[in-house]
Amino acid sequence: MSRKFTVAAAQLGPIARDEPRSSAVARLCAMMKDAKARGASLVVFPELALTTFFPRWFIEAGPELDRWFETEMPNDATAPLFDLARELQIGFHLGYAELTPDGHHYNTAILVGPDGEIVGKYRKIHLPGHWENEEWRPFQHLEKRYFEKGDLGWPVFDMLGGKLGMCICNDRRWPETWRVLGLGGAELVCLGYNTPIHFAPAPEHDHLQYFHNELSVMAGCYQNGTWGVAVAKAGLEEGSVLIGGSLIVAPTGEIVARASTSGDEVICAEVDLDRCAEIRANVFNFEEHREPQDYLPITAPKTKRRAAE
Amino acid sequence: MSRKFTVAAAQLGPIARDEPRSSAVARLCAMMKDAKARGASLVVFPELALTTFFPRWFIEAGPELDRWFETEMPNDATAPLFDLARELQIGFHLGYAELTPDGHHYNTAILVGPDGEIVGKYRKIHLPGHWENEEWRPFQHLEKRYFEKGDLGWPVFDMLGGKLGMCICNDRRWPETWRVLGLGGAELVCLGYNTPIHFAPAPEHDHLQYFHNELSVMAGCYQNGTWGVAVAKAGLEEGSVLIGGSLIVAPTGEIVARASTSGDEVICAEVDLDRCAEIRANVFNFEEHREPQDYLPITAPKTKRRAAE
Repeated sequence: MSRKFTVAAAQLGPIARDEPRSSAVARLCAMMKDAKARGASLVVFPELALTTFFPRWFIEAGPELDRWFETEMPNDATAPLFDLARELQIGFHLGYAELTPDGHHYNTAILVGPDGEIVGKYRKIHLPGHWENEEWRPFQHLEKRYFEKGDLGWPVFDMLGGKLGMCICNDRRWPETWRVLGLGGAELVCLGYNTPIHFAPAPEHDHLQYFHNELSVMAGCYQNGTWGVAVAKAGLEEGSVLIGGSLIVAPTGEIVARASTSGDEVICAEVDLDRCAEIRANVFNFEEHREPQDYLPITAPKTKRRAAE
Repeated sequence: MSRKFTVAAAQLGPIARDEPRSSAVARLCAMMKDAKARGASLVVFPELALTTFFPRWFIEAGPELDRWFETEMPNDATAPLFDLARELQIGFHLGYAELTPDGHHYNTAILVGPDGEIVGKYRKIHLPGHWENEEWRPFQHLEKRYFEKGDLGWPVFDMLGGKLGMCICNDRRWPETWRVLGLGGAELVCLGYNTPIHFAPAPEHDHLQYFHNELSVMAGCYQNGTWGVAVAKAGLEEGSVLIGGSLIVAPTGEIVARASTSGDEVICAEVDLDRCAEIRANVFNFEEHREPQDYLPITAPKTKRRAAE
């Protein structure tokens, strides 16, 4: 049975601080319709796709912070997206800030089937940034403060006739992310990102942000023989420029589609999940060639942890 | 104290099956002189640099196979290289087939200091290819048959004011290789390769061999904040085309020098080991950002092993 389908990466331009979720969801719905019109079976939205990237500001814990989080999914604001998916019979991937009933905060993504039902959830593991308000920065990146490390590992889910996995933003830079997904059998990895072009601790590399994004996704796909759909929230958002460059990458590591704006933009590609075997059965045949006993330093505990933990 | 120096990648063109070691060593010596004349403190030669790439043929175990291996290092054939290094006060990296006194066969590389003394040794862990003679192939790739898996891990060595590591050929495709080296503190990784452009099990990817070589080395360097010097044995060797494309890569993943022939060719770049910190202290600050407890599948034992093992 053919496992070919069209996937869409729905890059999202900036969301203003005062832009309500209803407006963001309307933009996502418009792109979902566009994706469907172009034959897509799955549309991938970015990380934290419902609001502005709030970790750029220092916010005291409590209601002022929690209002950036979703306490249920779907909810009143996002129901139109789920309804439209069901109507159009299209799957989607969505990133959002999750506040659980027992008070845990996560940077989360979900896969939703063409029936509008949630198929799977992932909570971001590699949280970038810092814990404290650092006033010397032109803007903050307080993900380590606002989110807990994800507690779900990197699971894969049966969807569209294959195995789909997720990771989020900074996760994509870490080869361990891709390898755990690859070992789990992932054939397509959805990931969203909010990547400021300015990295305050090492601004000498700002011009390499697009290169590093592509390098990380291409390498992760090639080294695990998986498709990758990497989708940006992009553009000038509240004074901070976020990179665009959303990508669809083949299991060979080749880029097969790339966004060319920094706004709302849908790009599509036909994916064939059977092509993963070209890589997995050969150069990256894990059973044949991996040597886990030589990898032990990779899972050794870290020698020190931050005092606050 | 400055930790800047010039490194040379000495790509080696084809070595004929009947070309004696003395001839190969003379070619290496000529490139070592060239490297020194261009200011290099270290010259990196490729994998199995003393003979033709003999795993392309099926050879019965015994004296016919063992004649491709070195039983000591230095030996009569390679002494001129060690002597010249001492004379020129230049370090080098050399790959060769090693036969130990107790009969073990390894695909090995060494680092040699500017005093001509061996500083460190590595034995290839990710052996590519196959175990049995497969006559349907236009040529064999019998590394799994002729070599044992390396037993030294991926050590790093103090040299040139920094931490130097090694890996060999297929190792470079595996992110685990680079991560173990990175966790060990490697600031410059030397690696040689013999990569046929034709990969018999998946020839549809032959046109991607240069891309995959670059992608693997760039990703490994970036994701670990290390310099990389990747050196080919290149060109049309006994009917098999080996890729060239030798590279010197910065800790940012940027290629700073690239060979442009498929023959003997020396390329140079200035490296500054202090630049590793630009990456290691920031986006890839391992202590701050790695999550080893989530990486456990990476070191889980494989579920099946080949019966012969």
